[in-house]
Amino acid sequence: MGATLGILGGGQLGRMTAMAAARLGIPCVVWTPDADSPASQVAAETIVAPWNDSQAAAVLAAKVDAVTLEFENVPLDAVRALTELVAVRPGARCLEVAQDRLLEKTFANDLGIATAPYRQVGSLDELGRAFQDIGGPAILKSRRLGYDGKGQTRLNQSGDAPLAWEEVGGVPCILEGFVPFEKEVSVIVGRGLDGACRAYDVMENHHENHILRRTLAPAAISPAVASQAQEIGARLASALDLVGLLAVEFFLLEDGTLMVNEIAPRPHNSGHWTIDACTVSQFEQLVRAVVDLPLGDPQRHSDAEMLNLLGNEASMVSDSLSQPGTCVHLYGKSEARAGRKMGHITMLRPRT
Amino acid sequence: MGATLGILGGGQLGRMTAMAAARLGIPCVVWTPDADSPASQVAAETIVAPWNDSQAAAVLAAKVDAVTLEFENVPLDAVRALTELVAVRPGARCLEVAQDRLLEKTFANDLGIATAPYRQVGSLDELGRAFQDIGGPAILKSRRLGYDGKGQTRLNQSGDAPLAWEEVGGVPCILEGFVPFEKEVSVIVGRGLDGACRAYDVMENHHENHILRRTLAPAAISPAVASQAQEIGARLASALDLVGLLAVEFFLLEDGTLMVNEIAPRPHNSGHWTIDACTVSQFEQLVRAVVDLPLGDPQRHSDAEMLNLLGNEASMVSDSLSQPGTCVHLYGKSEARAGRKMGHITMLRPRT
Repeated sequence: MGATLGILGGGQLGRMTAMAAARLGIPCVVWTPDADSPASQVAAETIVAPWNDSQAAAVLAAKVDAVTLEFENVPLDAVRALTELVAVRPGARCLEVAQDRLLEKTFANDLGIATAPYRQVGSLDELGRAFQDIGGPAILKSRRLGYDGKGQTRLNQSGDAPLAWEEVGGVPCILEGFVPFEKEVSVIVGRGLDGACRAYDVMENHHENHILRRTLAPAAISPAVASQAQEIGARLASALDLVGLLAVEFFLLEDGTLMVNEIAPRPHNSGHWTIDACTVSQFEQLVRAVVDLPLGDPQRHSDAEMLNLLGNEASMVSDSLSQPGTCVHLYGKSEARAGRKMGHITMLRPRT
Repeated sequence: MGATLGILGGGQLGRMTAMAAARLGIPCVVWTPDADSPASQVAAETIVAPWNDSQAAAVLAAKVDAVTLEFENVPLDAVRALTELVAVRPGARCLEVAQDRLLEKTFANDLGIATAPYRQVGSLDELGRAFQDIGGPAILKSRRLGYDGKGQTRLNQSGDAPLAWEEVGGVPCILEGFVPFEKEVSVIVGRGLDGACRAYDVMENHHENHILRRTLAPAAISPAVASQAQEIGARLASALDLVGLLAVEFFLLEDGTLMVNEIAPRPHNSGHWTIDACTVSQFEQLVRAVVDLPLGDPQRHSDAEMLNLLGNEASMVSDSLSQPGTCVHLYGKSEARAGRKMGHITMLRPRT
């Protein structure tokens, strides 16, 4: 097919994207600020440079036909500069929205899509007023750079405000009302240059200490709720004019209401099961969208349960290796810090 | 798991082995005489050097924990020299047998395993006598370096001998009696350092112009014949004390007799379906065996049909990309020569 793909970021999502590209014979060039990244071990080439290095941008643009990204916190200025040189998919507008919890929620609400109630918080005074409005318990979240529960703290009563404000470092935030959800579910939608959307089955996620631990695919939810989640994913992707993947995390309330929690314009941890349970994985779907190949069929051939391997759990996979129906994935990270995502296991079962 | 794997050879089998190793977080160093090989595009590192380069052997041995190979025609001297420095799996004895059609057939027969009738042929005179013994039609095959029908020619009558002998270049040969087979089937067996064998389901192969075109898994054969093929595969692997994979191609006669046609101590084209239809592919099974991890479950979760993409067929996969249940693999080869294996497609169906 002759294309070469650039990937911004060198983590496991970039690694698995490069491996999916390799299946299609598409070489990847990874741009990452970090030496010896998981993605660079499997990519044809790596550029190690900070995001503001305009020469690195020129070198990358000269080598590839299109660029995608494995995390949404690449600085917008760097993405915009790169966009002058080569197609970046998804584009800067998608990142802008996904990088900022306030824009993200506003964007969803403007489309008539529900989220948890929230207020913008720029000062301790505003935090106090927001808590009065929303009531407790509530979660104070930094608008930017939050992941795996980082930059978040809980307020149970108004007296918690000063400490919470200190904990998040006094950065621009939102205060989000606590939603008594029954399940957390997510959906991943691929969207091509022609606007065609293909959604994977909705999955159900279980977190521990704010880190994804376990995903079940498909989610044990009604077909109507599943369709609605897929439809919301496609609507958001289309409104963002996104080319690539959009992952949408939802709270599912007891009455069947779906509220968008977060969006991510990239492959998502909750979609790792698609590598082993679908003919076209989320990573391959991303590659296809970005280099303008036809999107693949997102149907699953098996049901799946995915478990993240955190910290030193990856050194204990020996038993899993010989379990029937069990697929083991490790990311080639040398240092097993506590809570760090080192790999995952997918257990396949006959399709229901 | 911390291991690093060396791979002798840089073709598509090495490429898919390196990709399977990457799933397990295992980096690969490829040794190949060819610059810009398919495997080098996805390996952590490549050594480009001829097989007799003893310095390259030392460099590879210093970087890896074990070495495997993606084709069996690495010169034995090179393999033996490397074995002094690092574990090579499968070992030189396996290659010695697999490199030589005469040794291969003798080895099988000595274990009581049937092959087509054959005679050793070292001269035109011997060819004449062999044809008298075996009768026509018969196939003259060079003992060494034959693949995809290369180094083979057919004799229908004794008068064909001189031309046939000229066609194979007068090299040491065997003359093989033509077997009126009903099907060609194959099996792939993984064997660990501890001697444990795990066989994949037997598959059925269809060739065109001596090149594999299509594989069906499982083969449409009786369970008894399938078990027997798996048992023969395990018996051959054990007798060779092989660590890694053994692929065995059989002729299946109408009366249910299995005759070994060829063996290959490496991943095999007829096993590519295992990437998409099994939790542990033939390539991952090889990696596990060679770096001494537990072998995986070889059960298929889906039935599969594999089609090779030859020559410029790879440029016409656009339709396949959007077909449900269809997995497309391309090998990153730049030049699409006629008959060259450029990629393959696997179509999955619910398990029968």
